[in-house]
Amino acid sequence: MSKLIGAAVIGQSGGPSSVINSSAYGVIRTALDTPEITAVYGMAHGIKGILSDTLYDMSKEDPEELALLQNTPSSELGSCRYKIKEPEEDETDYKKILEIFKKYNIRYFFYNGGNDSMDTCNKVSRYMAKSGWECRVMGVPKTIDNDLYGTDHCPGFASAAKYIATSCAEVYKDAHVYDTGMITVIEIMGRNAGWLAGSAALAGVCGCAPDLVYLPEVDFDMDSFVAKVTDIYKKNGNCIVAVSEGIHYADGSLVSEAKASATDGFGHAQLGGLASMLTNIVKERTGAKVRAIELSLLQRCGAHLASQTDIDEAFLAGKAAVEAAVAGETGYMVAFERAVDENGKYLCKTKLLPLTAVANYEKKVPLEWINETGDGVTQEFIDYVLPLIAGENHRKTEFGLPRFAHLKKIVAK
Amino acid sequence: MSKLIGAAVIGQSGGPSSVINSSAYGVIRTALDTPEITAVYGMAHGIKGILSDTLYDMSKEDPEELALLQNTPSSELGSCRYKIKEPEEDETDYKKILEIFKKYNIRYFFYNGGNDSMDTCNKVSRYMAKSGWECRVMGVPKTIDNDLYGTDHCPGFASAAKYIATSCAEVYKDAHVYDTGMITVIEIMGRNAGWLAGSAALAGVCGCAPDLVYLPEVDFDMDSFVAKVTDIYKKNGNCIVAVSEGIHYADGSLVSEAKASATDGFGHAQLGGLASMLTNIVKERTGAKVRAIELSLLQRCGAHLASQTDIDEAFLAGKAAVEAAVAGETGYMVAFERAVDENGKYLCKTKLLPLTAVANYEKKVPLEWINETGDGVTQEFIDYVLPLIAGENHRKTEFGLPRFAHLKKIVAK
Repeated sequence: MSKLIGAAVIGQSGGPSSVINSSAYGVIRTALDTPEITAVYGMAHGIKGILSDTLYDMSKEDPEELALLQNTPSSELGSCRYKIKEPEEDETDYKKILEIFKKYNIRYFFYNGGNDSMDTCNKVSRYMAKSGWECRVMGVPKTIDNDLYGTDHCPGFASAAKYIATSCAEVYKDAHVYDTGMITVIEIMGRNAGWLAGSAALAGVCGCAPDLVYLPEVDFDMDSFVAKVTDIYKKNGNCIVAVSEGIHYADGSLVSEAKASATDGFGHAQLGGLASMLTNIVKERTGAKVRAIELSLLQRCGAHLASQTDIDEAFLAGKAAVEAAVAGETGYMVAFERAVDENGKYLCKTKLLPLTAVANYEKKVPLEWINETGDGVTQEFIDYVLPLIAGENHRKTEFGLPRFAHLKKIVAK
Repeated sequence: MSKLIGAAVIGQSGGPSSVINSSAYGVIRTALDTPEITAVYGMAHGIKGILSDTLYDMSKEDPEELALLQNTPSSELGSCRYKIKEPEEDETDYKKILEIFKKYNIRYFFYNGGNDSMDTCNKVSRYMAKSGWECRVMGVPKTIDNDLYGTDHCPGFASAAKYIATSCAEVYKDAHVYDTGMITVIEIMGRNAGWLAGSAALAGVCGCAPDLVYLPEVDFDMDSFVAKVTDIYKKNGNCIVAVSEGIHYADGSLVSEAKASATDGFGHAQLGGLASMLTNIVKERTGAKVRAIELSLLQRCGAHLASQTDIDEAFLAGKAAVEAAVAGETGYMVAFERAVDENGKYLCKTKLLPLTAVANYEKKVPLEWINETGDGVTQEFIDYVLPLIAGENHRKTEFGLPRFAHLKKIVAK
């Protein structure tokens, strides 16, 4: 493969995570250090930054500030949820992209995100190939939901899992403090895949396992839920439940969307989300004191608790994308393969997956990793997640508070 | 003062915090190392452990596990919210307490908690003096609310403040990621005092200040709130608000308790708490995307983010209580005095306050530390809190998760 000399551009897209900036840093640092790459640009708000010709010149940034991206949550370049059309349908966006690529001589395109981002990546890759503009396109995976196909796991998942498991362990301690008991429901992100909700079970490693864990892979039954919670509460004087926001009834309707109904005895008008609704139902049935806790955005931006393994792997994914592209590859997403070293210790290797194979396919928790009663995960699930959350991060603080990266974001001309 | 030889007992009471166990450890470790103290007992669930004769023999615990109490959240001995009657009203509990004191030769009584706990402490102290059983009684302060009278600050507050400020900074990053804006309301604990809500403003130190901060010390006006949020959102495309759970209208009624009303245009039936209610109101007015985040129990049990300054001072409070009691003092609560060292650096000293002066009095945020528009705090507030949250803690982890203390809790005979 011949050498390709030109500029590189990196964009971030979709919902942020604690380590997506570490992947961006992996791309930016490696690209800046690569002789074939003549300039490195960051897209303001993903693909929208190309469409609006707003590219930040990354060479103008202080290297130390750039390095702080590894501990800065959310997407520092800005994100978007913009979905470009199929080129066959509407070519407008693609023409603009090509124009900007030519203007800046962009020969390397890196896009950092989840399913939708890989779809964008794939479309750009196909269009550039068709139009004859040589440009190597690589996807860098990111999603706290861990639902990308073909990769052992996704950067961002482990840090959210670590946050969830730690918070569940701490809440367990708090909820068990009085001799008068309490029922606590903790609501966790993950619409269709239960990787995050299942990670609540890791609190069991420090002796603080939730009693029940509900994943969206299994149909939810309200009667069974109420009966189990009541039993556990009567027996132990306490009950902690972790639920995925995406749990649904057998007919596919989301539990969180159930509306008030005079007949079913369960439906309640609700503003405060699923956990509030479930605690209100069990409170009515048991008379117990209840607490609803929604981990909300905290679980995906809690960089102070990010897994160092996750941070390192996120960086590695970005770095591998640049190296592969410079070596001549295009149209791939970097993926992870789990391996073990000579001592049987966890090891993470990268591989390349065709973007066409990745885009728009969701990987769910295998049903054999969910227990038979559908209210917990198996040891296989725990063993899968545990190595990923290992390692406390080396974040920088100032005055006892996080020191995030301060980028100048100088727009390229 | 003559030497007093006998056993010591320590109890924890009220809502837990991230560092109340560090205070308990300060008492237990110091007491175990004091020759005059012949045995050290932990009350199971505070004063209820005495009434039910359930005392744990702390000398039977592994010293290394005891030391892990410094990073274990919540009250490891168990807590209670039991309020003993005035001895003049009903002597039953006191007679039982005296019986247990005699049974175990308890000569030192340490009680670790907030306002109500200092009241219990005070009552026990007075009764023992009256009954002629020589027993030295000391209160060890704890409250995330920071509302204890006569002390510069309270152990537990700073760790919650650090959690709140860090989480607000992280949420700020997340909430600013899209070019399409969002209004975020973060609900923070503190019914009557705004120390915790005000601490959200510390996120400004890392460039992530919330736009508006509402404390319960100032009457809340819904029209003004909606107008300000709308203005900021229109101007910046984004708005982050931190509110105390205890904000109230001028007539004293809690905003969180406002009920649905067809006439006022604001009231909404609500299950999900104050933040949900406020976001629903501003969503209706602005059409903006909104997020309600309730920090809930997480802010008081988030020991993984506890301030090392707070952990050390909590320990110091427990240690000082034992040392003062052994030296002959009784009927006091340990309090903190702020000082500076020769380099002008923050320093914390202990002093003793009569229990009678402390019990049942709440310390609020001074009005001059709240800005003129009643929607933020002044630099004085920031300068007051900042030294308290300094220092990252040295917690132990295992498999990437917190390693809490495992106590054997062997009941004394």
